[in-house]
Amino acid sequence: MNRMYTKGCASSFFPSPVYIWSAAAIVGEKEGEGPLGHCFDKVLSDPLFGEKTWEGAEAAIQKETADLAIKKAGLTPERIRILFAGDLLAQTIASSFGSAEMGIPFYGLYGACSAMGEALSLGALVIGGGFGEHVLCAASSHFATAEKEFRFPLGYGNQRPLSATWTVTGSGACLLGSTPPPDAPHLQLLRKGRGCAAITGITTGRVVDYGLKDSLNMGGCMAPAAFDTIRRHLLDFDRKPSAYDAIVTGDLGVVGQKILIQLLREKNMDIASRHQDCGLLIFDAQAQDTHSGGSGCGCSAAVLCSYLLPKVVSGEWKRILFLPTGALLSKTSYNEGESVPGVAHAVVIEHFDLQ
Amino acid sequence: MNRMYTKGCASSFFPSPVYIWSAAAIVGEKEGEGPLGHCFDKVLSDPLFGEKTWEGAEAAIQKETADLAIKKAGLTPERIRILFAGDLLAQTIASSFGSAEMGIPFYGLYGACSAMGEALSLGALVIGGGFGEHVLCAASSHFATAEKEFRFPLGYGNQRPLSATWTVTGSGACLLGSTPPPDAPHLQLLRKGRGCAAITGITTGRVVDYGLKDSLNMGGCMAPAAFDTIRRHLLDFDRKPSAYDAIVTGDLGVVGQKILIQLLREKNMDIASRHQDCGLLIFDAQAQDTHSGGSGCGCSAAVLCSYLLPKVVSGEWKRILFLPTGALLSKTSYNEGESVPGVAHAVVIEHFDLQ
Repeated sequence: MNRMYTKGCASSFFPSPVYIWSAAAIVGEKEGEGPLGHCFDKVLSDPLFGEKTWEGAEAAIQKETADLAIKKAGLTPERIRILFAGDLLAQTIASSFGSAEMGIPFYGLYGACSAMGEALSLGALVIGGGFGEHVLCAASSHFATAEKEFRFPLGYGNQRPLSATWTVTGSGACLLGSTPPPDAPHLQLLRKGRGCAAITGITTGRVVDYGLKDSLNMGGCMAPAAFDTIRRHLLDFDRKPSAYDAIVTGDLGVVGQKILIQLLREKNMDIASRHQDCGLLIFDAQAQDTHSGGSGCGCSAAVLCSYLLPKVVSGEWKRILFLPTGALLSKTSYNEGESVPGVAHAVVIEHFDLQ
Repeated sequence: MNRMYTKGCASSFFPSPVYIWSAAAIVGEKEGEGPLGHCFDKVLSDPLFGEKTWEGAEAAIQKETADLAIKKAGLTPERIRILFAGDLLAQTIASSFGSAEMGIPFYGLYGACSAMGEALSLGALVIGGGFGEHVLCAASSHFATAEKEFRFPLGYGNQRPLSATWTVTGSGACLLGSTPPPDAPHLQLLRKGRGCAAITGITTGRVVDYGLKDSLNMGGCMAPAAFDTIRRHLLDFDRKPSAYDAIVTGDLGVVGQKILIQLLREKNMDIASRHQDCGLLIFDAQAQDTHSGGSGCGCSAAVLCSYLLPKVVSGEWKRILFLPTGALLSKTSYNEGESVPGVAHAVVIEHFDLQ
């Protein structure tokens, strides 16, 4: 058997690719008005999605998105071996009252906005290890639940500094499979002719803490973690940034992007020409007044499932590094004067041409 | 290759056992005064553990426990491929400011009090899949952080119903290895002569919601989830309860234990003679006034690492089912009138006689 990891590093390789069968993305109205508005499966006009509470709305959106990913793949929940899901809320209630309600064996995750990277990594490890045929990965966030959870009541109408990001209302879900997606034109599989997308490796993030304490500059707090993961990833896989058509972070925003590029330059790794950030892709920050960009578990998850994956499937991009970033704080840790450490989990997604 | 799972079930089998190299348990004073007081590695007299906040204390206890498990195995953090850790706090800050600070590649988990079951399951999947040699699994809870997070300020001195449980102050950590623990008498390995303990299978829990809404009767809320996992486990592995010397749930307490045994009896599965519950083991409920028993991620984790594993290593028990149980609520979900769903993750731990 091929060795699937290297000693002293945090990367895993999948000699048999872990295929992405289907993906779904559902977002709120503001996200629908952004540059990627035409890419999402559904844009919701009602931010409560018919529910009584914001938390209920986020859970319902996550469940609807996960359900859609399963349906697109022509499967039913009974066929899914494990669900990995996460969100930003205390005790991850958007997941346990969301996609977990489908009755799929469930591992709940907390990695802040890195949730989709964590879910895809663990899903790929399960399938890559031979423990299942189908795994579902989901993540969500909601502007109103996040403001309530971490910041101020919406009615307070507080002013936000330009370094602040705007939490995306939305969810993304991916169905992973041990075999290539079948050729079934009646299903909305992630397949275009013979082209499909698959996970071929991961680099697990470490918690990195530069001591920053500003929860309204999360891009700055997370950039060192993204730097650490990308640097270790390139070393572990012995690749240059040019091996990737795009290196896509989760929600560093304008502020975090500058720091990340600079930190990597100091290690002679230049990613400036191929770096993208889901938080910068999902909103037109100027026109939509979202300051540093979008954020939240739903940001990277929805951008992956609507915009990034189709480009890999079509072959426009041959290989990308998808790297959701998370800021590990709670209102308690923040109010007790703790710093805001970051974490970033990297997933290699490649174009495959099926025989 | 042997098939490592069965279609339509949520169990995974490990043809090569995943060995438990070392374990550590550190608890608070009340736990030290309980029936297992002599089993723990350390009993802390200061509930703040020298820190300024309860959250800081829990994080420090978890980190100290994880560090001890690594040291007992004669390893250093650099040698550990992945850390899986979880706790009860919003945004799992006891883990991200706790064991995650050691710089080990980290996946944060939220499964409420089932965290140690989730961590061991994912650790075993990583090693069983061939993705690493050493994985660390840790979980913690603290009476004072949990009361603050979920219930009333300590100073309020509220009355607790008899169905309520007492959150354990403590942490447990296990180091998993792909090979048997070496014969190194100078290390505190989980090995007695040729005897050791290893994980041979898991059953992933589903979220089960019977609609109960009483957060002060969490045993009742979680019992249906434990029932569901045990029932599916016995079917998936084609075993009777007698195949286990002990079936040990996390923190069902007096109330949940009765419900679990009754629910299984209705399916002709009688576990009464071999059921134990970490929450009932850790405290003398009468003498220590802990009502229904102990609870919290640290309860099952500390009992496993101090009391259960040595019995398996010595061969007194040949095979046990370890099944931490979690109640999936937050104060927001509770205050919004939501029910309290449960989840339970089962881990098969067996005695091995090394050649």
